[in-house]
Amino acid sequence: MLSALDHVGVAVEEIDAALPFYRDVLGLELVHRETVAAQGVHAALLDVGGGHVELLAPIEADSGIARFLARQGAGLHHVAYRVEDIEAVLRALAAAGVRLIDDRPRPGIRGSRVAFVHPSATGGVLSEIVQPAEPSN
Amino acid sequence: MLSALDHVGVAVEEIDAALPFYRDVLGLELVHRETVAAQGVHAALLDVGGGHVELLAPIEADSGIARFLARQGAGLHHVAYRVEDIEAVLRALAAAGVRLIDDRPRPGIRGSRVAFVHPSATGGVLSEIVQPAEPSN
Repeated sequence: MLSALDHVGVAVEEIDAALPFYRDVLGLELVHRETVAAQGVHAALLDVGGGHVELLAPIEADSGIARFLARQGAGLHHVAYRVEDIEAVLRALAAAGVRLIDDRPRPGIRGSRVAFVHPSATGGVLSEIVQPAEPSN
Repeated sequence: MLSALDHVGVAVEEIDAALPFYRDVLGLELVHRETVAAQGVHAALLDVGGGHVELLAPIEADSGIARFLARQGAGLHHVAYRVEDIEAVLRALAAAGVRLIDDRPRPGIRGSRVAFVHPSATGGVLSEIVQPAEPSN
């Protein structure tokens, strides 16, 4: 059902302040930047093998990422699993009684379709499933 | 320097209480269980693509995982990056002035060698580098 660890989402105050560590010290390639207005975030993707680190910084003070930062500071925000058929996975999760934040896919970064599972269903881990726009290399 | 997302570490109160969601609902294969006394944890590895989810439950009340659970509850604990030469990566990080928890590798789960980078160096993310005992399939 899940084909890979797609990414970890990391909440940061400012993308440009976090980039030097990930790009220059860890040597990860910055492959994409995007502002996802619907989620209230600036985002940056850095490749690591077939997955990536997704840095997330708030656009505005009432976004989910801003509340996360206010509550617990910068750090790991979510984990995302790659899937091939997001509708099928959502149906399976719903059939298993899993509490979902999104019961249907919504647009994600870089043309993907994504849905979040509620942390109460996963033992406290905000978890995302993501169907990439096209097969990853 | 980093070749893949190796795993995400998830702090849980009890491995057996967390397993049904990851194994039976998400369908991940449970591939390993181990008690790592030096880290004060019971651990379970579930495969997802070439990476895995590592469930971690405390052995005793004064372990790092127990303190994490007391402070913020169950949830994402760390991210681990796979490396091919852990000594070389540690040397590069030290040369870049990165604050390390472990300045030399120590034994990890399933025969791996691991080292942790201090969250103050990574923007709040407890980060691990891991050299597997043998090449992953």
